[in-house]
Amino acid sequence: MRRAICPGSFDPIHRGHVEIIRRAAMLFQEVVVAVSDNPKKTYFLDRSQRLELAEASLEGISGVVVEPLEQGLLARYAADRGAVALVKGLRSGQDYDYELPMAAMNRALTQVETVFLPANPELLHISSSLVKEVHALGGDVEAFVPAPVLAALKAR
Amino acid sequence: MRRAICPGSFDPIHRGHVEIIRRAAMLFQEVVVAVSDNPKKTYFLDRSQRLELAEASLEGISGVVVEPLEQGLLARYAADRGAVALVKGLRSGQDYDYELPMAAMNRALTQVETVFLPANPELLHISSSLVKEVHALGGDVEAFVPAPVLAALKAR
Amino acid sequence: MRRAICPGSFDPIHRGHVEIIRRAAMLFQEVVVAVSDNPKKTYFLDRSQRLELAEASLEGISGVVVEPLEQGLLARYAADRGAVALVKGLRSGQDYDYELPMAAMNRALTQVETVFLPANPELLHISSSLVKEVHALGGDVEAFVPAPVLAALKAR
Amino acid sequence: MRRAICPGSFDPIHRGHVEIIRRAAMLFQEVVVAVSDNPKKTYFLDRSQRLELAEASLEGISGVVVEPLEQGLLARYAADRGAVALVKGLRSGQDYDYELPMAAMNRALTQVETVFLPANPELLHISSSLVKEVHALGGDVEAFVPAPVLAALKAR
Amino acid sequence: MRRAICPGSFDPIHRGHVEIIRRAAMLFQEVVVAVSDNPKKTYFLDRSQRLELAEASLEGISGVVVEPLEQGLLARYAADRGAVALVKGLRSGQDYDYELPMAAMNRALTQVETVFLPANPELLHISSSLVKEVHALGGDVEAFVPAPVLAALKAR
Amino acid sequence: MRRAICPGSFDPIHRGHVEIIRRAAMLFQEVVVAVSDNPKKTYFLDRSQRLELAEASLEGISGVVVEPLEQGLLARYAADRGAVALVKGLRSGQDYDYELPMAAMNRALTQVETVFLPANPELLHISSSLVKEVHALGGDVEAFVPAPVLAALKAR
Repeated sequence: MRRAICPGSFDPIHRGHVEIIRRAAMLFQEVVVAVSDNPKKTYFLDRSQRLELAEASLEGISGVVVEPLEQGLLARYAADRGAVALVKGLRSGQDYDYELPMAAMNRALTQVETVFLPANPELLHISSSLVKEVHALGGDVEAFVPAPVLAALKAR
Repeated sequence: MRRAICPGSFDPIHRGHVEIIRRAAMLFQEVVVAVSDNPKKTYFLDRSQRLELAEASLEGISGVVVEPLEQGLLARYAADRGAVALVKGLRSGQDYDYELPMAAMNRALTQVETVFLPANPELLHISSSLVKEVHALGGDVEAFVPAPVLAALKAR
Repeated sequence: MRRAICPGSFDPIHRGHVEIIRRAAMLFQEVVVAVSDNPKKTYFLDRSQRLELAEASLEGISGVVVEPLEQGLLARYAADRGAVALVKGLRSGQDYDYELPMAAMNRALTQVETVFLPANPELLHISSSLVKEVHALGGDVEAFVPAPVLAALKAR
Repeated sequence: MRRAICPGSFDPIHRGHVEIIRRAAMLFQEVVVAVSDNPKKTYFLDRSQRLELAEASLEGISGVVVEPLEQGLLARYAADRGAVALVKGLRSGQDYDYELPMAAMNRALTQVETVFLPANPELLHISSSLVKEVHALGGDVEAFVPAPVLAALKAR
Repeated sequence: MRRAICPGSFDPIHRGHVEIIRRAAMLFQEVVVAVSDNPKKTYFLDRSQRLELAEASLEGISGVVVEPLEQGLLARYAADRGAVALVKGLRSGQDYDYELPMAAMNRALTQVETVFLPANPELLHISSSLVKEVHALGGDVEAFVPAPVLAALKAR
Repeated sequence: MRRAICPGSFDPIHRGHVEIIRRAAMLFQEVVVAVSDNPKKTYFLDRSQRLELAEASLEGISGVVVEPLEQGLLARYAADRGAVALVKGLRSGQDYDYELPMAAMNRALTQVETVFLPANPELLHISSSLVKEVHALGGDVEAFVPAPVLAALKAR
């Protein structure tokens, strides 16, 4: 079975993430959505909530598993999980230049491959940070996040 | 009347800003220079000084208005002010890749357009952060900022 | 009155063109769609047909004029027509790097400004050359071109 | 079974191609190497030779099939072959900006996905055109092409 | 003595070339301006004229030698001439992505280094092809080429 | 004598640095490796250690001098040291777009040139920050840093 990893902080998961994961699930038999938690970073949502919202938002996409990514080398985690690839969405040539050294480093460490999927152009403007900023300034983010995330944002 | 917005923190306004605003004023009947103030950010100059220096530096360019941009969605502000466009200077293809998601987000929120003007190549190296760094290290910034800004920097 | 020029060969005009021109018409009082004809190039459609299809496809967008662009310096044509700007759609940072030297050259020649509008991401994949290629290979281009162009392609 | 397509003219196949195809074969159960033949283009090697050299150079990589790609829409071919993805190697952010409109067009036509693999940096400088140029100028291309291609080049 | 090569077709040499060569001559003890002649290409000026105009335009810059570059591998020529580097001007990140594979190939062939100098932003819009196009369309190119080239263009 | 400066924080020096400095030493008679210390930044290693490790890692490359770069304008330092150029490694077109304004600013301040060398593709993924991250997460960085740095990392 070919397994791939979609790593991220998913703070929160948004429609761009969901779309990349759905497409990854067409390519690989299993897609592990690995939710990271870096003690040096500050998150908007705590990890249990990020995990829950990812699960709820991805419900019904077959072959997708959500799990916590413990602190450690992503490349080693991917190898330990028997994954053939990391999957990343790309929004621009600039994104690629940014991702390339990490992809090369991961390959140097454990031979894990990084596969890039072009972001759906209609979702290009959606990122977790823009979603949080628009929401904080009173904008409506319904078009940008799955229903469970919208409900969680409203409940805060 | 076609009105455009040039948003920024203008901390401080420099010759690259002035040139983009002058060119924008050739394209639109009114150009609103909107000086932002984000409570999460630390500024070199407080906003009243940034507003004053922008006014003084833009004096004599007809059709230009300087005003504070209150915290909130830029896209909504632009819509409330009846603006047809935001104007941004571009210094490289990388700048464009960086600006694109915000432009797309603003269009998604209130249909406001973003218009890009290529930076005058002779002013390409001027940014507020480089100006502040050169000034802090004892360099002469006369070639990079308008006279009122130079005077203010020397007075500090 | 602020007039802008949208230059191109429009061989044929497609939905991406129409969208950029519609948005340009929100920014400027008059938009001249200037259809070029370079004797050194081979066209799919002759210029009279390209002009007709542009007219038919842009019908109903107020403030838009379609006219032939005679062989000569685009910068001089823009100056002669009293235009304040050339308008170009941008699809990527790479597009920008490609367009920049021409924009700078045009400004050096007659001070005409070039204004860049980001392509609507949903239309990013549409170009005259891809439309022609897909059509030649038997693909359906209805989603990519205005109705008059589709009819003309089918009639050939 | 998840099948992917590696399309190209392979004129000739080089070590960069072989490496991308080998990595694609780790990701997908079957990889179809589809050798195109565009009547409007001039090739260095005719297609039967390009097919043969691809076969010989890829021998021993399990799950790889070499076949001719008949003139027609690549997106339709991929759909007809039941492929989930096209696979492309990327050598730079510029490559990505170039490939993106075609990937978006192919998705618009038949929903086929394009998956990008970053070129192995050590093989970044190898392209069919540089190989042919170096060979034509008397340079040694042994480091850049598989043994069967080297033999064929020497035999000409 | 550290010698560098500035290769090109110089069809014709322009102010951007002259500026890069002048700066290269500050970095290296000798700069060889190598004027190529590719039998597969069509030139505006024949090589003897391109050589003459380069000589005349570079007169007075010490340490610069103009010479024909015979058909063959540039990397081998550089090695034969005992050069430590090829020098290229860069006008954008896109230029860099384009030049990189050739630089890597040349290093793979004979270990010759490629050194990149950023184009003077004020000369960014000047290229031989734009100069020829502007001149052909009746534009004034005095600002873009050295005096000997201007005279030669007027004489044709 | 042509002297060049390789500025950086070298926190720590890695194999990519060593390779660029070795290549710079082929181009210039003297290469000054200038180790900066910005009071506003936090370093992993203090400057005396960064200087020592740079010295130890560069031992045996003739023409290379390691020295502290005191806080101040880099452009003025380069001029004071009589250097003809700053040398920077480039890993992508994005790097270039990032470095260009600083290069232009330095030239505006004291006419010092910036020379760009393309990173060896095999070392493209190595940066001080990735090295520190991999090491902190328990990964083996032996392939990325010179022996003295590896020893120092293990000793901490």
